Amino acid sequence: MSHGELYHSMNKWTMPLIANIILFAVMQCGFAFLEAGAVRSKNSTNILIKNLMDQFVAGIAYWIFGFPFAFGNGNDFIGYTFWATYELEETKLALFFFQYVFAATAATIVSGAMAERCEFIAYIVYSILITGFIYPVVTHWVWSDNAWLTAGMDYTFNNETVTIGYKDFAGSGVVHVLGGIAALVGASLLGPRKGRFHKGSKTVVPIRGHSVPLAALGGFILLFGFLAFNGGSQLTISNAGDGEAISLSVVNTIISGSMSALVSLIINRLTGTSKWSLLTTLNGALTGMVAICAGCNVYHPWAACVVGFFAAIAYKLINTIVTSLYIDDPLDAVAVHFGGGSWGVIAVAFLHRTDGIVYNWDQASGMALAWQLCGLVTITAWTAVTSVLMFGILKLTGLLRVAPELEAKGLDIPKHGEPAYPTEAYGHGWEEKLAK
Amino acid sequence: MSHGELYHSMNKWTMPLIANIILFAVMQCGFAFLEAGAVRSKNSTNILIKNLMDQFVAGIAYWIFGFPFAFGNGNDFIGYTFWATYELEETKLALFFFQYVFAATAATIVSGAMAERCEFIAYIVYSILITGFIYPVVTHWVWSDNAWLTAGMDYTFNNETVTIGYKDFAGSGVVHVLGGIAALVGASLLGPRKGRFHKGSKTVVPIRGHSVPLAALGGFILLFGFLAFNGGSQLTISNAGDGEAISLSVVNTIISGSMSALVSLIINRLTGTSKWSLLTTLNGALTGMVAICAGCNVYHPWAACVVGFFAAIAYKLINTIVTSLYIDDPLDAVAVHFGGGSWGVIAVAFLHRTDGIVYNWDQASGMALAWQLCGLVTITAWTAVTSVLMFGILKLTGLLRVAPELEAKGLDIPKHGEPAYPTEAYGHGWEEKLAK
Amino acid sequence: MSHGELYHSMNKWTMPLIANIILFAVMQCGFAFLEAGAVRSKNSTNILIKNLMDQFVAGIAYWIFGFPFAFGNGNDFIGYTFWATYELEETKLALFFFQYVFAATAATIVSGAMAERCEFIAYIVYSILITGFIYPVVTHWVWSDNAWLTAGMDYTFNNETVTIGYKDFAGSGVVHVLGGIAALVGASLLGPRKGRFHKGSKTVVPIRGHSVPLAALGGFILLFGFLAFNGGSQLTISNAGDGEAISLSVVNTIISGSMSALVSLIINRLTGTSKWSLLTTLNGALTGMVAICAGCNVYHPWAACVVGFFAAIAYKLINTIVTSLYIDDPLDAVAVHFGGGSWGVIAVAFLHRTDGIVYNWDQASGMALAWQLCGLVTITAWTAVTSVLMFGILKLTGLLRVAPELEAKGLDIPKHGEPAYPTEAYGHGWEEKLAK
Repeated sequence: MSHGELYHSMNKWTMPLIANIILFAVMQCGFAFLEAGAVRSKNSTNILIKNLMDQFVAGIAYWIFGFPFAFGNGNDFIGYTFWATYELEETKLALFFFQYVFAATAATIVSGAMAERCEFIAYIVYSILITGFIYPVVTHWVWSDNAWLTAGMDYTFNNETVTIGYKDFAGSGVVHVLGGIAALVGASLLGPRKGRFHKGSKTVVPIRGHSVPLAALGGFILLFGFLAFNGGSQLTISNAGDGEAISLSVVNTIISGSMSALVSLIINRLTGTSKWSLLTTLNGALTGMVAICAGCNVYHPWAACVVGFFAAIAYKLINTIVTSLYIDDPLDAVAVHFGGGSWGVIAVAFLHRTDGIVYNWDQASGMALAWQLCGLVTITAWTAVTSVLMFGILKLTGLLRVAPELEAKGLDIPKHGEPAYPTEAYGHGWEEKLAK
Repeated sequence: MSHGELYHSMNKWTMPLIANIILFAVMQCGFAFLEAGAVRSKNSTNILIKNLMDQFVAGIAYWIFGFPFAFGNGNDFIGYTFWATYELEETKLALFFFQYVFAATAATIVSGAMAERCEFIAYIVYSILITGFIYPVVTHWVWSDNAWLTAGMDYTFNNETVTIGYKDFAGSGVVHVLGGIAALVGASLLGPRKGRFHKGSKTVVPIRGHSVPLAALGGFILLFGFLAFNGGSQLTISNAGDGEAISLSVVNTIISGSMSALVSLIINRLTGTSKWSLLTTLNGALTGMVAICAGCNVYHPWAACVVGFFAAIAYKLINTIVTSLYIDDPLDAVAVHFGGGSWGVIAVAFLHRTDGIVYNWDQASGMALAWQLCGLVTITAWTAVTSVLMFGILKLTGLLRVAPELEAKGLDIPKHGEPAYPTEAYGHGWEEKLAK
Repeated sequence: MSHGELYHSMNKWTMPLIANIILFAVMQCGFAFLEAGAVRSKNSTNILIKNLMDQFVAGIAYWIFGFPFAFGNGNDFIGYTFWATYELEETKLALFFFQYVFAATAATIVSGAMAERCEFIAYIVYSILITGFIYPVVTHWVWSDNAWLTAGMDYTFNNETVTIGYKDFAGSGVVHVLGGIAALVGASLLGPRKGRFHKGSKTVVPIRGHSVPLAALGGFILLFGFLAFNGGSQLTISNAGDGEAISLSVVNTIISGSMSALVSLIINRLTGTSKWSLLTTLNGALTGMVAICAGCNVYHPWAACVVGFFAAIAYKLINTIVTSLYIDDPLDAVAVHFGGGSWGVIAVAFLHRTDGIVYNWDQASGMALAWQLCGLVTITAWTAVTSVLMFGILKLTGLLRVAPELEAKGLDIPKHGEPAYPTEAYGHGWEEKLAK
């Protein structure tokens, strides 16, 4: 059943949904502070205004052409009605709002990977393109009335005909694989921050963010935003059994996130610096929650625990690969979102509580796995191609990266005129009173 | 239909509404951090405790006499039953809570304009008066069962009789014009912070706040608080069509805020410092959301876009006027709330999707404009007169402004004994380990 | 009526409840920042990761054995079915989630009292035990189908038979007395931070936290979390009259918190440092909200005002006693949670709007008081005994407290490898441009 159909019956049930959506919208704030804490103070205003802007850019771009591309009537590739919500039934406005927030989230993921060296204008341009075109086309394939990936095909096994298609409940693939791949392409074409890698001596130099409390604030907000994200993806509460599905989604999200956090903490303690790292634990939890998105409504809780366990492995694996390729991703956005998201898409085929491979290893479950892989490859390929074009053109025209002198000194003052912590605003004149 | 009547049927629908209201209550937190980031570190504790206190002061004052003045039975000017919720039906407690939060918000707006130099006692006094008297009387006129401004009058045009009155769905006038005018009077009578203006040389000296991240945190919270604010003002979900009205309100709030943010960003880039200013963008977004309040339920989305565009102009205009009058408003509260609010009240008359002047330019729509102006002038006049009396008496009795020595050194230590960032609480003893 | 029974009918009403619960889950974030602001910068990462971890630890421990102990079928002392939610009906998953958050909250209270000197491993161990055993057993007694404390006994007075038992609506006793007592035992066995007390000269040396804004952020979040906590404890909205009960709970929470905040502010102004203290006001408000939990659904608003007034007295009293015993509680967790919670449990017997002693001073209301005291003593004794065992064993095995050198230098770098504010991440290279 498509998102669009579900919304037709939404009349009096809209309000709690809207409340839930607003809560989920808080994720935008979560990403902003996770990223702000993870950059140096000289680029704090820059990353905050980027996160602020993509809501506004998406607010206009998704309204004018993003939503039409995604949920307008059209062909299998793209939609082309409801420009600027023209002639859209009012009952579909809640769908518009819900999807708008997803679109803004996809763009925000990218900003973390490209932090501290990307031009502001380039940011505006790619935010418009991701929220207005790249992301909407994928949602058209997966969540619209014309969704060929979700609709799948009919198969006859043992004289029984079943329909099998791509399953992605809350967007492990649609939102997070897409965001993660765009982040990977963007960070690769942009190049690492100055001083991040010494390629001669093959050393990786950690560049610390300026504030663990700000990053933790963002993380806390994101954790609870994910609960709303996954619970709210049920989209309606007017059908029997929806209450249970929502509860199950929320509980599975907690269990997967917790497991992934604990395993990530332990992996980090046993390797590398041998410390109890807050930031690794937080990224681990987020990866677990990203991974559970695709099937949070169809797992038994023990399966959520398994999803979380391997999400931690996926995070560590992708993180190691990205670093070894000398790609500089200040937020580990690729490891969290592409790592968690791609594992999450695959996991559905194995752990779905009625059709999963671990329950029924037969032709049907094998074909379901093939469709999950098909969805994963399709989304990855589409995002990679469009991102290479987009970031490539920006790079060739010299709009992608700030000048080396600006990068060294920081973007806040020359670009925005607003240092995050202006020196002259600090200090008390009462030091003598405080002296002991 | 008055707020009071709507509430009579609220029984089993109360819970989602309460959830929404709680979310909206988060706005108090948003204002606190927007203001904390915008002051110097030496006054951070002071502004935070003020924002904290007005919830508590309002909690008692609005309970004992504010709500009775607003929603008690009485005459056209004021209500006078339900003191301390005595004999109030329990079904109206949700209305009480919703209105309590509005009242606290109105008081909070003022604290920003008077930051860094206002006495704590004066703050307590004016919080009591705004939340317990000035604001309640206006809500009595607009949202109670005796609301003469909303009830309006009967007119006969072309043999058809229509009732026309003041329209203010979510408080562009009631909350924001009131708060903005009180802020203007307060900041004027208080005088500018030391060093803000050099009147001899006619220069304006910017005084930077101490933390862009704190201000941005407040801004992010406020943006999403506005969605709840405007969505929640529907007040009930038990009538057919309410779901759509709420969705429309939320979508229009997003579009108006986004447009106003983008236009404000561009205006600032093209004038003055030629920078991409975060704080201006944020204030622009807030102004757009303030302006949409009055009619967010009756605009087509394109009209919301127009409201946002002119909100950005109104913000810039009022900001320029206030500065040129040498009035020191550290938060631009007057420009955001009075600028956005007054444009929002007027916009309803032009852009209402069935009765607006741009659709039907006739006697009825002209009279509707007259009523909007009547509401605007009435609220402005009432607030201005009562504020001049209130702040004037405080000034004459010497209670309004702190001593110059305290202002220079900062209020946190002498008034509150709690520096925001105590020097002795900082520093790690591990510097040698961190050295490279 | 037990929580369990209420949940049976929860089908289509689940979604707004889940939204409310998520909001309430925000309390975890509130505690994290309240505590982060109240410690020195050298221990900020440490306290943040502790608050982050207890969600994850509880997510697994409460799932595997905590929930079974609490809500599994079993005997009067403990439950023993539904391990890892095995064979739990899906309709009870919402109950699981709601209770999971309560459990994590109980553990978080303790972390504040033991801040800046407790081993990370000890923290993990006691989080598992509190969320997985100590807290679940108490909820089994009070909120499960086998709840002997809530079920109470039948009494015959004047030929009328009434059932009287322990009343604790939203956990003044179950959550806060338990958390407060565990905090007291933990802080006592751990001993004070170095430099906190000079026992020779009998002086108490204040150790300031490093950031009032972070503490205030946590406080703001907690205040609104409490509204959801107390409103959400109604657990269902499908029964007639529930809407009113929820509204009443929320309004009473506001009034009690406001009153307690104002009285605490004034007490602090009239005694000690004679300042308008933000942190005291905040703790006062929290104490008032803790105290109202037990009966927020059965008080008239004026009674909530009385509860808040005495909550402020209880806070001051317990705070004074704890300090005079040279117990170092950096967050005043014992005064807030045990002080507020124990007063809250007792207050129900006096101020219940139909059965309270101030309305009917007879045998039945006297017996109700006896049951409240019975609940209070039972919870206190159980928590004290289990906490002494738990923290005692940790102390004897040398796992409880960090080495003195680490304590002096701070835990962030040696334990976590992540200083909260790394020196090298600060500074702009544009100072010459900023110079005037």
